[in-house]
Amino acid sequence: MASLEYSEQGYKEILTSLENSVLSITINRAKYRNTFSGGLFKELVHIFDLADRDDRVRAVVLTSEPTAPAFCSGADISGGWGSLWKEESEKEGEHAHRDSGGILAMTIYRCRKLTIVAVNGHAAGVGMTALQLPFDFRFVWSGAKLTFPFVRRGINPEATSSYLLPRLIGHSRATSLLLTGATVTPDSPYIQSLYHQILPTREEVYPAALAFAIELAENTSQVAIAYSKGLLQHPGDSVEENHLLDSRAIKLLGSSVDGEEGARAFKERRLPKFTGTLSKNSSPWYPWWHRLDVHHRKAKL
Amino acid sequence: MASLEYSEQGYKEILTSLENSVLSITINRAKYRNTFSGGLFKELVHIFDLADRDDRVRAVVLTSEPTAPAFCSGADISGGWGSLWKEESEKEGEHAHRDSGGILAMTIYRCRKLTIVAVNGHAAGVGMTALQLPFDFRFVWSGAKLTFPFVRRGINPEATSSYLLPRLIGHSRATSLLLTGATVTPDSPYIQSLYHQILPTREEVYPAALAFAIELAENTSQVAIAYSKGLLQHPGDSVEENHLLDSRAIKLLGSSVDGEEGARAFKERRLPKFTGTLSKNSSPWYPWWHRLDVHHRKAKL
Amino acid sequence: MASLEYSEQGYKEILTSLENSVLSITINRAKYRNTFSGGLFKELVHIFDLADRDDRVRAVVLTSEPTAPAFCSGADISGGWGSLWKEESEKEGEHAHRDSGGILAMTIYRCRKLTIVAVNGHAAGVGMTALQLPFDFRFVWSGAKLTFPFVRRGINPEATSSYLLPRLIGHSRATSLLLTGATVTPDSPYIQSLYHQILPTREEVYPAALAFAIELAENTSQVAIAYSKGLLQHPGDSVEENHLLDSRAIKLLGSSVDGEEGARAFKERRLPKFTGTLSKNSSPWYPWWHRLDVHHRKAKL
Repeated sequence: MASLEYSEQGYKEILTSLENSVLSITINRAKYRNTFSGGLFKELVHIFDLADRDDRVRAVVLTSEPTAPAFCSGADISGGWGSLWKEESEKEGEHAHRDSGGILAMTIYRCRKLTIVAVNGHAAGVGMTALQLPFDFRFVWSGAKLTFPFVRRGINPEATSSYLLPRLIGHSRATSLLLTGATVTPDSPYIQSLYHQILPTREEVYPAALAFAIELAENTSQVAIAYSKGLLQHPGDSVEENHLLDSRAIKLLGSSVDGEEGARAFKERRLPKFTGTLSKNSSPWYPWWHRLDVHHRKAKL
Repeated sequence: MASLEYSEQGYKEILTSLENSVLSITINRAKYRNTFSGGLFKELVHIFDLADRDDRVRAVVLTSEPTAPAFCSGADISGGWGSLWKEESEKEGEHAHRDSGGILAMTIYRCRKLTIVAVNGHAAGVGMTALQLPFDFRFVWSGAKLTFPFVRRGINPEATSSYLLPRLIGHSRATSLLLTGATVTPDSPYIQSLYHQILPTREEVYPAALAFAIELAENTSQVAIAYSKGLLQHPGDSVEENHLLDSRAIKLLGSSVDGEEGARAFKERRLPKFTGTLSKNSSPWYPWWHRLDVHHRKAKL
Repeated sequence: MASLEYSEQGYKEILTSLENSVLSITINRAKYRNTFSGGLFKELVHIFDLADRDDRVRAVVLTSEPTAPAFCSGADISGGWGSLWKEESEKEGEHAHRDSGGILAMTIYRCRKLTIVAVNGHAAGVGMTALQLPFDFRFVWSGAKLTFPFVRRGINPEATSSYLLPRLIGHSRATSLLLTGATVTPDSPYIQSLYHQILPTREEVYPAALAFAIELAENTSQVAIAYSKGLLQHPGDSVEENHLLDSRAIKLLGSSVDGEEGARAFKERRLPKFTGTLSKNSSPWYPWWHRLDVHHRKAKL
């Protein structure tokens, strides 16, 4: 069985640390303006998948060195888009292409732990989409220049951003951002509601996100977070379906070790001490939704 | 046939009054911090169902005594969650459980009249979910401490809140509230857009909500409100389906006594005097949507 | 084949001009307070359909004379709603009625070009719905009185507004507007997020919208805009479906003349010069969604 130690994974594009149940990931490509490379893509997919399964991790924080020129300046397209196509899609046609930003976005979106991104610099393209939208919480530096430049580059918004952004902030604001490709700062009314917190300096963003993560890791239940994320992402198609889902979840969790500790701590007027984990205290019923297999030859358009 | 008189229903946990076509309901459990009990649950389900069918009622306002310690401090869980499980779900398994907060939320959500809640005190748990989210309009005291504490108690958000809250204010803000369990006041950017009006003192909340309800009850059509609520809750899956639905509704309503009065009043530059009622002036076509039967053995997960 | 020249269409209710790839349409019924008439309806449907197919057009701006009493004061209902019913629906029953506001709204919504409305005066009824909600961007005069008066006229919101408005600004704000019929100005928290920009005088609204349109027409790809609008309107039912759609689109567009120019311009640090057009550079795969036929006898409720 492969080691779960983050330090033993041989990552080259990211730095990692696990403390207080919080896994911190730092993009480490400052000399390339933190562009999104194939190597960075693979390492991020790998580590978010690991964090999802690692009971020790209750929250993940992604950030960059605050001294880098940008949090993430997007994909490097100086060689054209061609470098993005894999052999398979070149041979079999456009329907065989799978956008790497989307694969990463789905991996982060599916991570059952709390996910937080600390955007401590400028962000563009995939640095706005895959590296921000699938997270539960976004912290940002007030001076960050933010842009979804796709329509000004001749392409469409990628990395599932046309699904995620309107859900997060509504279609009016999402359209103002995606169809203009404008550059904005976090105080812009178009984007403000995307962020959980806006910090005045680059240096303050990660520490604020980390303190937030540690407090939540200490005082929330890992299993309750996973089920709550499931309900937010897959609430059912009607209020009635949602009622069936949240009823079953509450019976499961309320009868679990964390539900019991939650009620007891409330009664005793103290902070809870949750010990439940996803590998021991979840249920075969979870996930209750069908996950479309997006691999080529399994999914067609 | 049972009496429709609210004063004759023998309610113990709520006070009621019907004036100017507005039914006011006051939660009357101040000595229990207005916790959500089995008795309060049953009476609220009963009265919202009654109000739905009572042609005299054009709007419902729910509130609490402003001198109570809280508008509603949630369910009483000092005895653990166990008190919430009914015998059936204990015997037949978790899939048989039906959350009472959800049953109440669906009852309020389905009420075809205007529904307004006057949150004149602190609110937590089911006091945030079932007692606020399914309403059409929320009035609140600016000093109210508001919290969805679920993940800090080891459980998931209930009462269909994972369906309703993201629809009301978007996923970014809903996640900030539901996955942190933070306590906020109404001026917080996370929750501000949930409220129709924020009042500076506890005493002003109910009178403002009542005046708002009376004005709407006088000047809107009962049938038009019911169909408009239906369209907002069940708009169809595409702009085309919505067009079929709102076209049919507008032909029905435009040809009805209220539609005719509306056009006449507009022409004569006077306020309308609507006399249409749901029992006389609706159509067998309404409701046009399928309602999932959530009763155990009828609905499965 | 019919002429594509806008000046040769014989429009009576609108003025048109095509400059810098931007088609401007001005409602020209000031002496009727710019009410929505059968003639105006037909001309707007006709011209938006033309603009959709005309490769020369990259953006459409709709406005009114700023000296008119209103941007659009709604339908003229002084003769009752009856004038709205067509013979067919009178004969065949309410299910045969098709709301003209909805037909126009769908036509604008489906237009594959950038659509911008310059609301330089008061707006009511269909002037708020069909003439604003299906557009990509709304510019407005800060002094405009805005109202969705339906429930105060005995009818329901029309023109697909019960579908579009909650998607644009969320259900909490949409309900505050649609179920009250209140009159608000653009700075109202209920409606503020509907607008891309708010201008202090009536005279500034159209020039601001036009300048915005020209800049976008010059610097965005016609094909990328069409695909991006498609993704925003038809994102798929899950993040996985969206990933399949945006992956295929990005492979198509990235390999196209505009995608190549976008990458080249980025590398050469210059503005792009997009030459791709929908008639030459789209794909049979687009549109990827099924469009419900809403014609009577084709679609039933």
